[in-house]
Amino acid sequence: MSIRIKELKMLFERISSFGREENGGITRLSWSPSFLEAQRFLENYMKEIGLQTRIDTFGNLMGTRPGKEERPPVFCGSHLDSVPNGGAFDGALGIIAALEVMRSWQEEGFDPLRPVTVVAFAEEEGTLFNGHACMGSRFLTGELDLQARDIFRTASGTSLRELVSCYPAQSPDFFPLEPINRGSAYIELHIEQGNLLEEKGLQAGIVTTIVGIRHFTLLIKGRANHAGTTAMHRRQDAMVAAASLITFIYQRAKSADNTYVATNGRIEASPNAENVVAGEVRLSVEIRAERMEIIERVFDEIRNQISCVEQEFVVTVSVCGKNDLLPVPMDESLIRIMEKCAGETGLPYLKMPSWAGHDAMIMARHMPTAMLFVPSIEGISHAPEERSRFEDIEQAAILLDKTLRTLVCAGV
Amino acid sequence: MSIRIKELKMLFERISSFGREENGGITRLSWSPSFLEAQRFLENYMKEIGLQTRIDTFGNLMGTRPGKEERPPVFCGSHLDSVPNGGAFDGALGIIAALEVMRSWQEEGFDPLRPVTVVAFAEEEGTLFNGHACMGSRFLTGELDLQARDIFRTASGTSLRELVSCYPAQSPDFFPLEPINRGSAYIELHIEQGNLLEEKGLQAGIVTTIVGIRHFTLLIKGRANHAGTTAMHRRQDAMVAAASLITFIYQRAKSADNTYVATNGRIEASPNAENVVAGEVRLSVEIRAERMEIIERVFDEIRNQISCVEQEFVVTVSVCGKNDLLPVPMDESLIRIMEKCAGETGLPYLKMPSWAGHDAMIMARHMPTAMLFVPSIEGISHAPEERSRFEDIEQAAILLDKTLRTLVCAGV
Repeated sequence: MSIRIKELKMLFERISSFGREENGGITRLSWSPSFLEAQRFLENYMKEIGLQTRIDTFGNLMGTRPGKEERPPVFCGSHLDSVPNGGAFDGALGIIAALEVMRSWQEEGFDPLRPVTVVAFAEEEGTLFNGHACMGSRFLTGELDLQARDIFRTASGTSLRELVSCYPAQSPDFFPLEPINRGSAYIELHIEQGNLLEEKGLQAGIVTTIVGIRHFTLLIKGRANHAGTTAMHRRQDAMVAAASLITFIYQRAKSADNTYVATNGRIEASPNAENVVAGEVRLSVEIRAERMEIIERVFDEIRNQISCVEQEFVVTVSVCGKNDLLPVPMDESLIRIMEKCAGETGLPYLKMPSWAGHDAMIMARHMPTAMLFVPSIEGISHAPEERSRFEDIEQAAILLDKTLRTLVCAGV
Repeated sequence: MSIRIKELKMLFERISSFGREENGGITRLSWSPSFLEAQRFLENYMKEIGLQTRIDTFGNLMGTRPGKEERPPVFCGSHLDSVPNGGAFDGALGIIAALEVMRSWQEEGFDPLRPVTVVAFAEEEGTLFNGHACMGSRFLTGELDLQARDIFRTASGTSLRELVSCYPAQSPDFFPLEPINRGSAYIELHIEQGNLLEEKGLQAGIVTTIVGIRHFTLLIKGRANHAGTTAMHRRQDAMVAAASLITFIYQRAKSADNTYVATNGRIEASPNAENVVAGEVRLSVEIRAERMEIIERVFDEIRNQISCVEQEFVVTVSVCGKNDLLPVPMDESLIRIMEKCAGETGLPYLKMPSWAGHDAMIMARHMPTAMLFVPSIEGISHAPEERSRFEDIEQAAILLDKTLRTLVCAGV
């Protein structure tokens, strides 16, 4: 009659068995044998708990509990693929929680007014196609067209068309989502992957916004020179200028009280020789924040600092390849519903941004969307040590249950 | 009857014509067609001015003005090879100046007591064999044995044996320098490649020491993590720790009033992705100073700073691949002779270290050695813009003339 921690653990153990590495990590790349085995297991499980299953031609698995009325379904789920040697909770947990809600409804004999479709997306992580993420949700929402089959290729040259040929074509070609299938909402439960909830001792996060991201590269040009004969005061050392900018960007972000994060993850120096003063350095900068105004302010600060660095180190610094991903706010009425449900069960939660991207980012362009976070122990993710507490998972599943019940009864 | 600036310029123009690039740079790699042409020109020129020529089986060209007595010669010269697209003065100038002294002696009919051998070394720059420098002087002094012919190979796999096969073997095999040929001294005139002389407005440098060099790599280990979900205060960012060390090393060296130089020329980050906090950084460190005590003190300072950085950024830093080249002091009695000669001609000079390595570094292990620097305009070297003033070159050649005359008359 209700969510059972035992069932959640059983499902988790079963899914974790597909793609398990010797070191405990999970490697379940989209369309790999372990991915397809996990998908077959889930498809059978869905049938057992009374869901009508379908795998689309991309490889997204869906299981629908029909509604009394034929209305657009409420989608609920997450992704089945993992990064190489990643964790067992990332993605899988959102599918497991949705399925446990559906199992409890089946047990109870609860018939919703509106259908619910549990979805297990393929290829969210962007592992196969050079970082192109959320491919499954982009396909489901009709954002990928027929050409995508041949445009997207893995590093070893395999096309998307070849990869999805593992599925018997239920549709002769890639298809955009039919209007009848358009969802009325999408709810994704996911691990936080950070450790804000743990630090605050809270059991759940209700996501307000998926943060915006600005990427750019700083191209720092000094003068390559002899590391012996060039006196220190005569140097135009691009490496030293880069170091100054890295320190500035880090210290400013650190003192900003978590209103944004900024990262210099990639560096390339030229000629990159131990006995030559660096003539040129390329340094990546990534800024993430809930609002573009914050990103713009940080960007302006960095640009001002660039002027100081240019003078101090006699270099030139240019900003290249600026690219923005705008913040994606979650649906306010869904947030209110989730807050109300959390209040009713007495679950201590935090309204917080998602600092990572998710399928919810894509789905939000097509339907009201919300996300629910489960705390990550020590904030570790994309690693074998990724963990969450099942007591927290149970509470999140209960909140998901209440939220879905509210949605499938409402005349949204 | 004396050094002529016109002859110096003529010789310079002729040698510069071998390996001249379109942009004005010089590419005269050892044993290349332009190197061999330059060598043939010099061999003929040597004969014209009465020198007895010989090319050893490595490719070092020597031209000897015999002495009245059969004693070990005074060697004088520099290297004929250049870096790719380097300057016209580096190396060539030391050969040109020595030849102009010999031409004036021939014109004057001056017969020295002791022979003088002008030497044009091959492969000083270390361009062909992965940075192995001063190969010609190492061969001449017997430091390279027979095995070297097959051990040393270019990046494309050509062996030293194949490269030197352009010479008709005057000796059946590589030979160590015969005792009869051991020199009584070696004097090398070279461009400064820095700009200390220019800054001080002085026309010549008398080298006290070729500086010692300590190389090592700092291996900085933090924790790779998600650039979005990892809050700033939770990061163990190896890139930020590296930046802090780069800044420390640079600022300390800059405030050390030219007593040493320190350089971070090479950096490798891992995973080096813009959306991942760097888990590991490898950073090269090179310290150069006249005395090892200075290098040791700087090294200790860096090690102390490492402890601070480890604490501040929650990383570990280890020192790998430490390697020392000891300082090579020039011969004190030769320095005194050069100073005395400079005093007599009224040439304003500076006693200074050489911050770069030279063939003199090798020769000093086998005979009393000294170096004479000509100012470099703006300190530029290893580039097409490399320049020195012919007024300075003339003065240096006059000083070289006086020094050699002193040496060949002395009963050293």
